[in-house]
Amino acid sequence: MQALVYTDIQKLIYREEKNPKLLNGESIIKVSASGICGSDMHAYHGHDSRRIPPLILGHEVSGVIKEGKDIGKKVVLNPLITCGKCNYCKNKREHLCPTRIILGMNRPIERQGGFAEYVSIPDKNIYELPKNLSMKEAPIAEPCAVALHAVELGENELSSELKDSRALVIGAGAIGLLCGLILSKVKKCKEIFIVEPNDNRLKESLKYLDASGFKPNSKSILKDDFDIVFDTVGLEITRKQAIESIKPGGIIIHIGLTQPSGNFDFRKTTLQEITFIGTYCYTNKDFEKTLNILNNNEIGSLGWIEYRDLKEGASAFKEIHDGKCIAPKIILLI
Amino acid sequence: MQALVYTDIQKLIYREEKNPKLLNGESIIKVSASGICGSDMHAYHGHDSRRIPPLILGHEVSGVIKEGKDIGKKVVLNPLITCGKCNYCKNKREHLCPTRIILGMNRPIERQGGFAEYVSIPDKNIYELPKNLSMKEAPIAEPCAVALHAVELGENELSSELKDSRALVIGAGAIGLLCGLILSKVKKCKEIFIVEPNDNRLKESLKYLDASGFKPNSKSILKDDFDIVFDTVGLEITRKQAIESIKPGGIIIHIGLTQPSGNFDFRKTTLQEITFIGTYCYTNKDFEKTLNILNNNEIGSLGWIEYRDLKEGASAFKEIHDGKCIAPKIILLI
Repeated sequence: MQALVYTDIQKLIYREEKNPKLLNGESIIKVSASGICGSDMHAYHGHDSRRIPPLILGHEVSGVIKEGKDIGKKVVLNPLITCGKCNYCKNKREHLCPTRIILGMNRPIERQGGFAEYVSIPDKNIYELPKNLSMKEAPIAEPCAVALHAVELGENELSSELKDSRALVIGAGAIGLLCGLILSKVKKCKEIFIVEPNDNRLKESLKYLDASGFKPNSKSILKDDFDIVFDTVGLEITRKQAIESIKPGGIIIHIGLTQPSGNFDFRKTTLQEITFIGTYCYTNKDFEKTLNILNNNEIGSLGWIEYRDLKEGASAFKEIHDGKCIAPKIILLI
Repeated sequence: MQALVYTDIQKLIYREEKNPKLLNGESIIKVSASGICGSDMHAYHGHDSRRIPPLILGHEVSGVIKEGKDIGKKVVLNPLITCGKCNYCKNKREHLCPTRIILGMNRPIERQGGFAEYVSIPDKNIYELPKNLSMKEAPIAEPCAVALHAVELGENELSSELKDSRALVIGAGAIGLLCGLILSKVKKCKEIFIVEPNDNRLKESLKYLDASGFKPNSKSILKDDFDIVFDTVGLEITRKQAIESIKPGGIIIHIGLTQPSGNFDFRKTTLQEITFIGTYCYTNKDFEKTLNILNNNEIGSLGWIEYRDLKEGASAFKEIHDGKCIAPKIILLI
């Protein structure tokens, strides 16, 4: 099969690779569309110890079953593969399973990803494509589940109702925009601010999201002003903005992995009883709920997604790397 | 009146000061006992911008009403003075009131503290001394309310029951020991580990607390092993131990202010969905609940408290500063 292979830091080659073999309890999917995630970019920069070249990246995948059960069925994949046996799996917290792995990783276990003609996946990770969702848009289900899980983690912590809370979203990438869209359109939150340093991307996201948009250093972002802050970037400087702008007793949801450590204001966290929760995943239930949200068109137009051919994948990665990509999401079509 | 006055960094003088004046809605308390808190030590070291010399420190106070309503009544004080009008106060989250102040602070507003013969306090902050609690032990109510609030913040977050959870307490000072005692004796938590670098203090705390005690660097403290961790110290190194030892999906409760900022592992926080909550205070309801707990002798013997005369206060502070004090709490008697 043809595949886009991550061969070295900032290097991807479209080349012939071996087809995946059919394993017990799994199916082979003929991939139709596969989205580029921030974590793929992280790997591309050589910053992910779980994704070591050579490796086929990609875990936001839709396609058609080629081998296994239900051949010919149009599907979307939940790429989070868990053991099903541990206490976390048994208690509907599969996303915390200690042996979990995501499609397109090779440490500690190899699981080739979706930037290829074919991919193998356990049957329990396969969901029927919702009838109102197009095959090419369907990979958005995965980051949308990440955002839904993050928003609902925050919602569970708030002492007031989410719809009446002031929310700040840091970053207008796919996760930031999706958090904003879920807050606005699903949770009916009326006061949403979003900050993003790239003017064009900010403008693009505001075409779809009913929010007030600003540069991160804008004076409109006041201290102690938000009930909930979503840091979808994960830099020391974005965490600084999160802790400065959160109200006493407020909630920070941290979804980014850009800068894995760094300084933080634990004094305000302590004196003002701030709750800081890290998240980057979702449960099976979140994934199912997301497919319903997308099927009902609850987050509105997905016109903000851009598409490229898989064989042009290397240049798509470079475009994102160079900061020239305005779209919050690029999906590769096979 | 005689008072122990904080006059400069690491300097306290026992001297004559003006008596407090009776204000509307307040009473004057003849102080019987006043505890030394970690935050008083913080001020003593010149590290607290809210406590600037000259100032009478002390906010863990019991005594007798001398002027105001109910003259002669034995009382214990809730030193957290709040506006009663803001949204936080109206919603039983008084501890987050933006204009709150604690007895023994002078920024932004002056409130002389309890290391003195007399102290003035709003009537709504005065509670009758529980009948089974001695006047000299009663100041422990305040740090005990801090610990109760912290434990219950964590309890609310846990996905399993607290009694069946593995808990790690970092630090065997008053807050650490009180968290341990509440976990063990009030919440019936069966698996408690406590770490403390000072051997003598660790040994002393284990006389009262049913827990496994270790030095912080002990190999018995495993990675990813605790459902809940209480960092009652608040150093970069104790936060490091907290994040290393917490299980995926676990809860870190952060109560210390020793090192107000510093590096932290946000990667594990994010990948393992860790909840990190800062706290140092309590609600009025927590304070009342604490008085009941103490009245019912629910946390057992308070034999771990040591007592000194107020006029010997300066040497008590020095003893704590020099690390020569084994007792987790010193209460000054007037």
